[in-house]
Amino acid sequence: MNKPDSCPISKEYPQILVAHGGGGKLMHELIEKMFIPTFQNPLLESRHDGAILELGNTKLAFTTDSYVVDPLFFPGGNIGTLAINGTVNDLAMCGARPMYLSTGIILEEGLETNKLRSIIKSMGQAAETAGVKLVTGDTKVVDRGKGDGVFINTTGIGIIEHNLQICPASVRPGDAIILSGDIGRHGVAIMAKREGLSFETTIESDCTSLEKVVLEMLEANIQIHCLRDLTRGGLATSLIEIAEAADVSIQIEENAIPVLEEVQGACEILGLDPIYIANEGRFVCFVPPSQIDQTLQIIDSHMLGGQACVIGTVLETGTGVKMKSCLGVNRIVNMLSGEQLPRIC
Amino acid sequence: MNKPDSCPISKEYPQILVAHGGGGKLMHELIEKMFIPTFQNPLLESRHDGAILELGNTKLAFTTDSYVVDPLFFPGGNIGTLAINGTVNDLAMCGARPMYLSTGIILEEGLETNKLRSIIKSMGQAAETAGVKLVTGDTKVVDRGKGDGVFINTTGIGIIEHNLQICPASVRPGDAIILSGDIGRHGVAIMAKREGLSFETTIESDCTSLEKVVLEMLEANIQIHCLRDLTRGGLATSLIEIAEAADVSIQIEENAIPVLEEVQGACEILGLDPIYIANEGRFVCFVPPSQIDQTLQIIDSHMLGGQACVIGTVLETGTGVKMKSCLGVNRIVNMLSGEQLPRIC
Repeated sequence: MNKPDSCPISKEYPQILVAHGGGGKLMHELIEKMFIPTFQNPLLESRHDGAILELGNTKLAFTTDSYVVDPLFFPGGNIGTLAINGTVNDLAMCGARPMYLSTGIILEEGLETNKLRSIIKSMGQAAETAGVKLVTGDTKVVDRGKGDGVFINTTGIGIIEHNLQICPASVRPGDAIILSGDIGRHGVAIMAKREGLSFETTIESDCTSLEKVVLEMLEANIQIHCLRDLTRGGLATSLIEIAEAADVSIQIEENAIPVLEEVQGACEILGLDPIYIANEGRFVCFVPPSQIDQTLQIIDSHMLGGQACVIGTVLETGTGVKMKSCLGVNRIVNMLSGEQLPRIC
Repeated sequence: MNKPDSCPISKEYPQILVAHGGGGKLMHELIEKMFIPTFQNPLLESRHDGAILELGNTKLAFTTDSYVVDPLFFPGGNIGTLAINGTVNDLAMCGARPMYLSTGIILEEGLETNKLRSIIKSMGQAAETAGVKLVTGDTKVVDRGKGDGVFINTTGIGIIEHNLQICPASVRPGDAIILSGDIGRHGVAIMAKREGLSFETTIESDCTSLEKVVLEMLEANIQIHCLRDLTRGGLATSLIEIAEAADVSIQIEENAIPVLEEVQGACEILGLDPIYIANEGRFVCFVPPSQIDQTLQIIDSHMLGGQACVIGTVLETGTGVKMKSCLGVNRIVNMLSGEQLPRIC
């Protein structure tokens, strides 16, 4: 039995559980009950992937993420690629042009210098691809057994060059919900590596940066209402967060959600649901229905495979997320307590 | 024997040592050989406490630090106070008005929720005192034995509202070097707590935020050439870094450097040199000699104890740092390989 599930709201945990970092209910509780009341300010309360700041005449997005992925190296990337792309993507999801990154690296004594070199090299390459500059940093070393190889924090600044309000509060009934491609690859790639599982083909993480596709959508005047990359907690958690923050009801169709056959197979064997699995290069966008075709076309021109699709819509009434299953049954999609797969990013 | 000391420049370490995070020679080597060539850009190469960015019409300072201090709670503060003040101070040392912070928190499974609450509360109080807003954050949890209670990254944005270039490159021969107060308290407080040592009086960390004193110096038109807070590696390392980056020679007087009697006593017992010990609320500033009195007055009006003093000057020729000892001998001050006290911040 997974105790945290039993009564997650009323119970106060005397100790931190792994589930508190899983992007699910327990993490939200920690944030809502401890962090937000302490650091109380309207910017924090928008519950978006980053904060939007106005400094002088400049509108900025500002976002941070720490990366603790285990293992450090996985098919399709490593913690370094993830640390750059993850933060670049959070800026892109604010509709910002990613500009500058900082990095704070915590090393564990005994880490092979070659592994670090390889991670740093990947960070450099990913930053170049995404067009961001890493301009300031910090390095700490903790004693053996007090860390886990490498933890990386990256914090990003991006410029917002348009007048759209891209955030949950802009979501409107009737909005089409577009998914940028198939889901579940990152989580399954990590888990297969971690557990030493092998499938017929190696499933690679979808880890990539999303600034170019978002900037092209903006240039094409797509009236984007909201963007969200599908990391911890996957598609399901992202949609639930948006529905809650926007106070709307979302209807999606299970049939419409693309999942690679190999990913589906791995999920079935392991009892995982792909809609909760973390991705590192997929996103949803909420756009007016009149712009569906144009949006799909732009996304497909940037993504290998070209599987962007409409997976649902925002309803006139109600709250929360409902999914019509392949069998035609409409069920409520709930947030998990933690993450199906801890330390996925 | 401390192996890393033997030949720190030519040797490549196959594994990361604790000394690589100590703020000394090994850390500089890691940064110079691995990080800077990979992330190559002029902003990173200024080797300052933060990067200075121009975005639109706005000039910003941007800086990051991860805090891994052990123990989490110590006389005079905790990791939360440190995480706010440390990053606020790095912004202040760029001559910026600290505005916004992000925080990335890595928790170890099993951490007592009450400890976390207390740390978060301290962060909230320190942020309020320093006048900064914590606007975005991230929380991760790692399994037991893969972290050490709490690690905190804070990254800060400040606005630069003047036209001075406050950085090592602005240091000039003849500049007076002013120290804001007595040194060594933070390092000794941490060490005493960690090792369970007790002295007649409890030595408290000097952990505090420095934005107010710096902003008042700017308002008073002090022509600040360079500022540096004396964290990892202490006064000695800060001055060596500045001398190297500015390509100047610095002469200081040991007699002029204030050290509390209890701190001096603790250092003698433990064989530590106060000039290498980390502080969390002390700084040096390089100013024209004509503004010494005004600068001392402003600093003393902000610091308890009022011990700001001139400790030295920038010479016309040479490079590096020399210190005239209490016995009148002039010796070269070298950078240590690591830190006398690891995990001090």
